[in-house]
Amino acid sequence: MVFTSHMELALEEARLAAACGEVPVGAVVVSPAGEVLAKAGNRTRELNDPSAHAEMLAVREACARLETERLTGCDLYVTLEPCAMCAGVIAAARIARVYYGASDPKSGGTAHGARVFSHPQAHHMPEIYDGIDAKACEALLTEFFTARRRLSGHSDA
Amino acid sequence: MVFTSHMELALEEARLAAACGEVPVGAVVVSPAGEVLAKAGNRTRELNDPSAHAEMLAVREACARLETERLTGCDLYVTLEPCAMCAGVIAAARIARVYYGASDPKSGGTAHGARVFSHPQAHHMPEIYDGIDAKACEALLTEFFTARRRLSGHSDA
Repeated sequence: MVFTSHMELALEEARLAAACGEVPVGAVVVSPAGEVLAKAGNRTRELNDPSAHAEMLAVREACARLETERLTGCDLYVTLEPCAMCAGVIAAARIARVYYGASDPKSGGTAHGARVFSHPQAHHMPEIYDGIDAKACEALLTEFFTARRRLSGHSDA
Repeated sequence: MVFTSHMELALEEARLAAACGEVPVGAVVVSPAGEVLAKAGNRTRELNDPSAHAEMLAVREACARLETERLTGCDLYVTLEPCAMCAGVIAAARIARVYYGASDPKSGGTAHGARVFSHPQAHHMPEIYDGIDAKACEALLTEFFTARRRLSGHSDA
């Protein structure tokens, strides 16, 4: 159980995303043996792809690497609560455990809103561990959006 | 309003998917001017990508073509009710209208289960029109799964 160092890798991906002007979220997929199979940050702007969330990219990369649609027994570390879309791909990929950092009451789809794993239509429900390195994960997001608001000025002024 | 011919294109993509051993679902993205921007069938097996559902691929292709994350004003035609993952990307891409064929009580995330558009966390809710060419859409799926069961024999015998 080395989730702090894996979440640190996810945080590093989130920081790299922020440096590129992307919303700072990062994700890492770890094999049952503890090997990092894939890591990614958000790239929706760079790729012009609304699906290019960190966890989506990490799951795709891990699947491509293992040449399989299923990541049975693998863990996912992500700095923000997955949205409905990402919860869907996590279920489809049969990820065993999800460790996430910051809660996302606005756009989350795991503990909030659609609660994708909490319906019979979710054929797979991973174990969920929330609040991992939550303060660091939240701080990155807060800093990013504060800076963006500052740059864009007060549009309501 | 030419949704029958657009759904026919989606059905053709579903048939092509079936011919490749993929679950027969097809999708088409249409611009506000009525231009077909992208069409795709399921390719999860071929691509080793659990996210490679027809509507996900079509949305990504249309975004790449227009070099944008948003498909504002565009319509999506898909032969099967979108799952939670695909409903998520449809919301993220700001698709205006979704026309779908067969209902999916088992894995759907639009009218069933997570009902992704029916929560405050869905920042965008498209208009939804269901049951378009439903019989043809369902027939493809039924034929596919019946043939697959026949090929695999009666595992419970």
